[in-house]
Formats: sequence, C-alpha cells, structure tokens
Amino acid sequence: MRQLLATTLLAFAITSTAQEALWESSAAVSPQLNADGTYTFRITAPKATEVTLWSDALPMVRTVDAKGDSITTRPLAQLSRGEAGVWEYTTPFVPAPELYSYTFFVDSVRTADLSNVYLIRDVTSVNNIFIPGAGPDSLYIAGRDVPRGDIAKVWYRDRRTGADRRMTVYTPAAYRTEPTRRFPVLYLLHGMGGDENAWSELGRASQILDNLIARGEAEPMIVVMPNGNPAQTAAPGETAAGLYTPTMALPHTMDGTFEEGFFDIIEHVDSHYRTVPGKQNMAIAGLSMGGFHALHISKQYPDTFGYVGLFSAATKPLQPSDSPVYKYFDAKLKRQFSTPPALYWIGIGRDDFLYDLNTELRAQLDDIGAQYEYVETDGGHQWRNWRRYLTDFSKKLFK
Amino acid sequence: MRQLLATTLLAFAITSTAQEALWESSAAVSPQLNADGTYTFRITAPKATEVTLWSDALPMVRTVDAKGDSITTRPLAQLSRGEAGVWEYTTPFVPAPELYSYTFFVDSVRTADLSNVYLIRDVTSVNNIFIPGAGPDSLYIAGRDVPRGDIAKVWYRDRRTGADRRMTVYTPAAYRTEPTRRFPVLYLLHGMGGDENAWSELGRASQILDNLIARGEAEPMIVVMPNGNPAQTAAPGETAAGLYTPTMALPHTMDGTFEEGFFDIIEHVDSHYRTVPGKQNMAIAGLSMGGFHALHISKQYPDTFGYVGLFSAATKPLQPSDSPVYKYFDAKLKRQFSTPPALYWIGIGRDDFLYDLNTELRAQLDDIGAQYEYVETDGGHQWRNWRRYLTDFSKKLFK
Repeated sequence: MRQLLATTLLAFAITSTAQEALWESSAAVSPQLNADGTYTFRITAPKATEVTLWSDALPMVRTVDAKGDSITTRPLAQLSRGEAGVWEYTTPFVPAPELYSYTFFVDSVRTADLSNVYLIRDVTSVNNIFIPGAGPDSLYIAGRDVPRGDIAKVWYRDRRTGADRRMTVYTPAAYRTEPTRRFPVLYLLHGMGGDENAWSELGRASQILDNLIARGEAEPMIVVMPNGNPAQTAAPGETAAGLYTPTMALPHTMDGTFEEGFFDIIEHVDSHYRTVPGKQNMAIAGLSMGGFHALHISKQYPDTFGYVGLFSAATKPLQPSDSPVYKYFDAKLKRQFSTPPALYWIGIGRDDFLYDLNTELRAQLDDIGAQYEYVETDGGHQWRNWRRYLTDFSKKLFK
Repeated sequence: MRQLLATTLLAFAITSTAQEALWESSAAVSPQLNADGTYTFRITAPKATEVTLWSDALPMVRTVDAKGDSITTRPLAQLSRGEAGVWEYTTPFVPAPELYSYTFFVDSVRTADLSNVYLIRDVTSVNNIFIPGAGPDSLYIAGRDVPRGDIAKVWYRDRRTGADRRMTVYTPAAYRTEPTRRFPVLYLLHGMGGDENAWSELGRASQILDNLIARGEAEPMIVVMPNGNPAQTAAPGETAAGLYTPTMALPHTMDGTFEEGFFDIIEHVDSHYRTVPGKQNMAIAGLSMGGFHALHISKQYPDTFGYVGLFSAATKPLQPSDSPVYKYFDAKLKRQFSTPPALYWIGIGRDDFLYDLNTELRAQLDDIGAQYEYVETDGGHQWRNWRRYLTDFSKKLFK
C-alpha cells in the first residue's frame, strides 16, 4: 500500500502540475545560462516559419533612415530552427548584470516564453524577465546570507474620498530584529501607468535595499511605495473592479490631487510604523510622473523632506491645471531652498524625452542658487536607469 | 511649450507602454464578457492554421476509451478564424462564478493570452486567469466597500538551520483600525509544488476572508501562510538562487522536517502580531501536502490547535520516513481527541486520487470515536475545491 501510494503520488507529481498537463511536451529549457556567460533562448514551435526575439538585452544599432537621419533601433534576433521543432538563439555577447525583459514572436504572434515562469507586468504589457550576473555583485537578486526585509501591501484611509488606498511598505531586516528601534522613511513614487507594485517588482526596490544595507552602503530605512493614481485605489486586479485591462493614461494623475492627499500617506506610516520624526529622516523620490510628484510635493511642503530624488522626472503637468500645487513655482522653490534639503538629486538619461525639461529645471535651480546633485547617464526613459538611480540615491540618504 | 509637452507626453503614453511597442497591433480584447454572460476569447494570429483553447471553464465530457472504459476528458475548444487574422471562441454557456485558468495553443505552441495581463503561476506552469461573476456574490474579488485586509511577506528565523524563511501574513482590516485588539490565527498550508504565495494568489485567501468578514460570516482572523518546503526558504525567484525553474517535487517535504520546525512559525507570529493565546484561538488547515502537514502537526502537538482542516489531504508520507512525527499514528490521534478540537473538518472531491486515503482516515477516526465534519464535493484535486473548502472552513472558526 505504501508503495502504491508513493507511485500514485509520484505520478501525480510528474503529470498534473498544471491541471491537465497538455503542454508538458512543449517544454524547452529557456533562457539557459551557458558556461561562457552567454544566454540561449528556446521555444518549441514545429509548424512555425519564423521565430524572433525582442529583448532590451539586445544592443541598439545606429542606422540611417529614409531621410538620411541617423537613428538608433533595436533589431529583433532571429531564432534558428533545430531538431524536433525547437527554435533557438544564443546571444553573441555576455549580457551585463541587469534585469532584462524579453518576448518571442512566433510567425508574428507575440508569445511569452512559458518555459520561464518569471513574467512581470509593465503598465499594459506582460513580459518575461531574466537577470544575468546573479552572484555577489548583483543588486537585483538578494545575495546569499543577506538579511531580508519584509514587504507589505497595506491600505490607508484617503480622507478626501473616504476610500482606502493601497501602498507597498518595505521594512528592513533590522526593523524585525530590533523591535524598539525607529527608522527613517523613503517615499518612493511610480511613473505613469505604474502603481504601488511597480517599484517592488520591476524596480527591485527590496532587493536593492537588502543588498546595500547588508554591505553597509545604505542606512536601514523604511521604503513606502504608494499608489499615485487618484483614479484607482490600488493596482489593477486588486479592487472591486476586478481583472480589468490596465491603461497607461488615467485621469487626475497630474492635477494636484495626489500631492494634496500625500499627508494621509505620511500619517498612516507614522502611526503604523516606528519612524523617526523630522525632515532629516524623510526622503521622497520618484520616476517620471513620480519624479514630478516628488518635485511638487517637496516644494509644496518645504519643511517636510530633507532628501529629494528626481529620476527622469517630468516637471510640468501633462495638461493645464488650476491646482494651487503648481502655482508660484519659482517662489516655492526658493522657499524650499531657504532651508535647503540635505540632498536634492536629479538623474536623467541623455536620450530621455524629458531631458530638455530637466535642463530647464536645473537652470531654474541655478538661478536661485540652489545646491543639487546631477547625474547624467546613458539611455532614456527606462527601468534600467531608475534602478540605477535608486541605488545611487539610497546610498546617500540619512547619513 | 506647454502644448508641445502635452503632445510629447501623450505620444509617449500611447506608444511606449512596453519599451518599444512592437506588439501593439496584435492586441485583441480577450477575454471579453458579453452582455449575455458568455465569454469570448481572442488572439491575433494571421499565419496560424489552427488555434485552440484549454480552460478549466470548459466542461468535462464523458467518453469511452479504446478498452471500452468510460472516462472523462476536457476537450479543447476550437477558435474560428475571423477578419485580419483574429481568431475567436465564444463559450456556449455562462461560466459559473469561479476563478478559471486558460491558455491558447497556436499551431500547437502553448501561447499565453497577452491581451490579458492576469497570469498566475501554479507550480511549474503559468496560465492566464479570469473570474466571471465578479459582483456582490463573488468571493474571489473583494466587493465594493468591503474593508480590505493587509498582506505581508515576512521572514522568520528557522532555528534548526539558522536561515530566515518567508511566509505570507494576512491581517484583517480590523487589525489596522482597532490597534489594541487581538485576533485568532489560522495557519493555512500549501500543497506540493506550492509555496507561501499559493494561497494568496490562486487560493484567493485574502479576498475570501475580506468578503466573509465584511458579511459577518467569518470572524476577523489573522491568516498565516508559511512556506512548507524545507528545501527552499522562500518561493522560487525570491531567494539568492535567483530565477530558477521551479519543480513539483522537492526533498524533505514529508519527512517530519516541516512539522518539527512549526513552532518557529508560531513563535514568530505570536511575537510580531497581536494574537490571542490558547487552543481555541488557533486553527490549522492545508490542501493536499498541506493537509498532510496539518494532520500531523495537529496530532503531534495535540493541545495547540482547536480547529483542524484537511482539504484533499494526503495522510501518509510519500516516501518511507523514520521521523518520530509519523510514529504511533493511532495513539497520537487518540491523544489528540482526548480533549477534542472544537472542529475537525475533512473535505475531499469524489474524483480526487486521495479519496480512498481519506476514507481510510475517516475509518480510523470512527474507530476511536472521534467527532469530525466531512464534506464530499464534485471534482478532484483542484483549486476550485480548495477555495470552496477554505470558504466553508473559515466560516466555522473561532465562534
């Protein structure tokens, strides 16, 4: 009987992993890390005539368009058909340590790599991810023996609407092991189309902080990642609206609503977590629209944040807004810098479509004699830069 | 300038949602809820010759196999090719309220529906999901104006190995709004191949509890969902091992290791959360291997749990084990029922491959005169039943 049971359970273990196991035979190992550091991507598609790979791991190529202008594009990689209908492509290079996204196109149908269970939604799209360079130097996978912080999805009361809204809260490992210690707080804001999950998923915030704190390169801190979309109370799929299709553009994202309600977030955090009071223990940063929010919140409430980070930030509302938040920009900035923050940090990529607006902002800061740090990187409006900016910025906080 | 900015940002919003927007044209609305309650599934595949749909929403059909035996199978649904290479299938029935999984096969390649951003991993497979019947009667989407509990991913110290292990903790809305109140705890365990994410994702534990508590049908309670695999400290992708390919079978899952370490979990919960002490405020339940764990933990520590739930439970170790946990089964069961739990609840589907073992267990319980509740449902070893069992069981706790 014992033997029979073991056989039955083992058969179950092998065959029923996904209800009816119709697709077991199609499994190919993908992506595969090769001994030389290259990666091989595979998909089984016996009837396909063309299979290609898109990935931000593939290099950009500079070409000339029809008008003779130099442009950069990222060509798809062609997979080669092998035995038993398995298509594959091996990178001719070792990808640098990074978090990359990718997807297949099988006869022009965008197809997820279902041999790889790691997929993350970015706004309206779901893509596979892979992370080369996991190991002692990697920031995006928490290292071996690195004490791990906790991550919570919590609801706070928005007083204006009376509704509960969701935020993600990272508490460092020391928060758990030192039960009376109090911690400074970084408020970390997402971009347009993002939500309270963005920084903890594609942004790798908890892995970055866990690693930096373990190395002594960042102070232990609480990181609060709220939902910055007044038109939704939580990420798509997490509310009574059910599993609706997300959209990039939502109303009220840049009309002052989020900025004016921000103290409800601070109040919830201060009343539910062991925080240290005072400007020198509060930081705010964000990417793109979140950088816009960080800019305007820190300026509107000038004695609140000792550290401000603008990552590829928008600086002006997308649509004209009458909100008092955006009035008297220069005067408020001057007021903010009359008792200057310990750090005002601006990061932008040279190819970012918001580059010129950041140049303009820096000129305004220069005009009033404001001190700030400025970092210019390769690339454009992309997660690769935002993870790097978070890494650089968080090392400088609360010291 | 303001106008130019708006145009630029809008263009960005429309075109750059996923880095390079190569796949925007392939988007079809899928799945679509029709006015009559049926669902339409669509995928754009201009070059395909056959597209089929697998879903556990499709009915099982009873047929006769080559040997003349009656068997039940779930046929794939055929999609029809329409204009512009868009294939579609409309269900000839209104799916009952439930969480369903599905996937396409495009010319035999298993293909995720990337028009639907909701995908959940089940052990080694990722599938799309959809949830018909969202509305006042739905349990699997939290209802409008239903106060929401918080969900945390926290790490506790496993004293045997010295490693930190991860668990998911649900705290009900009242935990947040009544800051001195203490709550009873349900320990809720996953099955083989699952992990600390299983009950909060496919299991919909927080939505079920939020809804039942809001309706007054369940008491507010903390729900603790640990990782029951001693060979991993956390779900795949959440550890220093990086983004490895998960497997169904792991070592040490049924050799007493998890059961013997269970007090580390209880101690972490009691020292970090406002719990109410005492057997009458502690419940343990699990599905399949988790049911096995609940059975053996509750029997090994007979004065700990006042409520025990076995959902499609395994009852005996998969492989022979010398663990003291599994010795003296009958005597320990008798000892456990000498001061009987308030509720000992067994649920199993008539088609479950563990049905006979549950019949055997009931005979053992009958032999010692133990009182238990027994629920037999349609279907087999599947999430549909486990969500239903959690619903029924949690209504009976702590009353």
